[in-house]
Amino acid sequence: MSTSMNTTMNTAMSNAKDTTPNPHPFIHHLAIVETKRIGCGTRVWAWTHIQEDVAVGDYCNIGEHCFLENGVIVGNRAVIKNGVSLWQGITVADHAFVGPHVVFTHERFPRSGFPKSYEPITIDQEASIGAGSIIVPGIRIGCYATVGAGSVVTHHVPDYCLVFGNPARVQGWMCVWGLRLKSGDPMGLTVVEGVASSSPLCECGRKYEISQEKCQLIAG
Amino acid sequence: MSTSMNTTMNTAMSNAKDTTPNPHPFIHHLAIVETKRIGCGTRVWAWTHIQEDVAVGDYCNIGEHCFLENGVIVGNRAVIKNGVSLWQGITVADHAFVGPHVVFTHERFPRSGFPKSYEPITIDQEASIGAGSIIVPGIRIGCYATVGAGSVVTHHVPDYCLVFGNPARVQGWMCVWGLRLKSGDPMGLTVVEGVASSSPLCECGRKYEISQEKCQLIAG
Amino acid sequence: MSTSMNTTMNTAMSNAKDTTPNPHPFIHHLAIVETKRIGCGTRVWAWTHIQEDVAVGDYCNIGEHCFLENGVIVGNRAVIKNGVSLWQGITVADHAFVGPHVVFTHERFPRSGFPKSYEPITIDQEASIGAGSIIVPGIRIGCYATVGAGSVVTHHVPDYCLVFGNPARVQGWMCVWGLRLKSGDPMGLTVVEGVASSSPLCECGRKYEISQEKCQLIAG
Repeated sequence: MSTSMNTTMNTAMSNAKDTTPNPHPFIHHLAIVETKRIGCGTRVWAWTHIQEDVAVGDYCNIGEHCFLENGVIVGNRAVIKNGVSLWQGITVADHAFVGPHVVFTHERFPRSGFPKSYEPITIDQEASIGAGSIIVPGIRIGCYATVGAGSVVTHHVPDYCLVFGNPARVQGWMCVWGLRLKSGDPMGLTVVEGVASSSPLCECGRKYEISQEKCQLIAG
Repeated sequence: MSTSMNTTMNTAMSNAKDTTPNPHPFIHHLAIVETKRIGCGTRVWAWTHIQEDVAVGDYCNIGEHCFLENGVIVGNRAVIKNGVSLWQGITVADHAFVGPHVVFTHERFPRSGFPKSYEPITIDQEASIGAGSIIVPGIRIGCYATVGAGSVVTHHVPDYCLVFGNPARVQGWMCVWGLRLKSGDPMGLTVVEGVASSSPLCECGRKYEISQEKCQLIAG
Repeated sequence: MSTSMNTTMNTAMSNAKDTTPNPHPFIHHLAIVETKRIGCGTRVWAWTHIQEDVAVGDYCNIGEHCFLENGVIVGNRAVIKNGVSLWQGITVADHAFVGPHVVFTHERFPRSGFPKSYEPITIDQEASIGAGSIIVPGIRIGCYATVGAGSVVTHHVPDYCLVFGNPARVQGWMCVWGLRLKSGDPMGLTVVEGVASSSPLCECGRKYEISQEKCQLIAG
């Protein structure tokens, strides 16, 4: 192994913490970064390829073995873990978390000889996509939504919603912190209709209103 | 990052379109290609390793972070997207589409200390394997068959058949273009017995005969 | 492609067989290995990154495009196939088999802005994790347990147990060799209560006692 590959990666990691002001992005020397639009404090790790027409915001962390195709947009402080390919038409908003080996698609029924137009996918602010999940074309994952690991997401996911399974189904609601919202039901995990009780629904101190299809932050 | 890694990949891509006659394959300088049997016009992208005893046909596109083990055969104009490992005994026929991060296997019940013989997997002409699907050993995916994203394929898939789910089950039939075949039933997606109505079954103008277990192109 | 990348990988592979005494590990020149604790006879393939505070035992085989984060421990003669990321807190015991593109996690409900503590995952001796499976945080996969390809493992897996599906459920029991244990029921695959018949349960000649929740090797 060449000495140049015994990189000072750990040093770079500790020098480039999100909380430290840092005007320069860190690009691992084994990454291929063709865009000039990488925000300050963003880190891009080894064997990741970012094409020319990609925009990545500030203080993001983009893992190893990723691919960001022309047309991809990534907001600020987003996390994209190892092994994720983002195709043209995919947008990852601020603070979103894309787990390791999440798989995105861009054509509903691809044929090698009959390419069709790409359908966009949007991951909204603070959403969290569990490891190894698969997102079919044309999907929007809402703000603060959570997709459990290994899900196959075939429908839009509302804000704050927790889905998992193959196909992914609504399983409950998640707070801003990533805690599961409890209903008036002490058993917790069922989804309740109407306005929640006056006590805060979540340990994190925030209060939410949950209906069958929707969750809103109302205080905190 | 070294300048040599700011590759002229986009230029290479536009120079190597399938439709342009091109006697030379394009091998990215960060790929490891040990075979001499790469067909004309085929493109192999970064961080992909193709072993010595592999044959790849003409005008294929093999993405980043792939691995083609000794014994693999890939036909002409096949597409293999990012992050796919093909093991000994796997054949990908002409025009097949293997989506990103599709996972192949070669032993039904592996133990690290007790290796068994590999079971082959065949992806037939024009078949399409959706992103992140998993194909267990010994499976044949038929011509024009379509595997939905995130499926776990544990049985053979007949020609033209659409399967998805974990485990993957028959969900309908797909035309040559990758459109879903509709039955006489206006609701469409159910599988019909017997010969289809005299009007073409598919928007693409072709006519198919569908039975419970089989679909055939009969005109067009 | 540079000549240096046309590596003599096949030669290296045949020179470094598990059965040959070999005091030196083989590290592919395109791997990044920062730890000094790699056991004798272990092979590490291209584009794999092993951080500084990782311990890997003897005669392991770690495929391409893997990532072993600080804090990971791998025993002796373990096999980790291509495309696997192992996070802090994950232990892979002796002789375990981690199939290609298996996905590990370390936080149950990640949010990019609210990191929580990692939950450990343990893969016990001789366990076998099928390709493309997903293991949620905090899980233990028991000795000789087998996880079928494409599973999403959300509960502990007992020793010798076979699980698969999303979520993974108990489907039967597996012998030391990786053969499925048959009950007194000639149809085989159901799980039987109580002590097995006096004849060996398994073709491999070993005898097991199976109850609803547990399997033990009692002779052989």
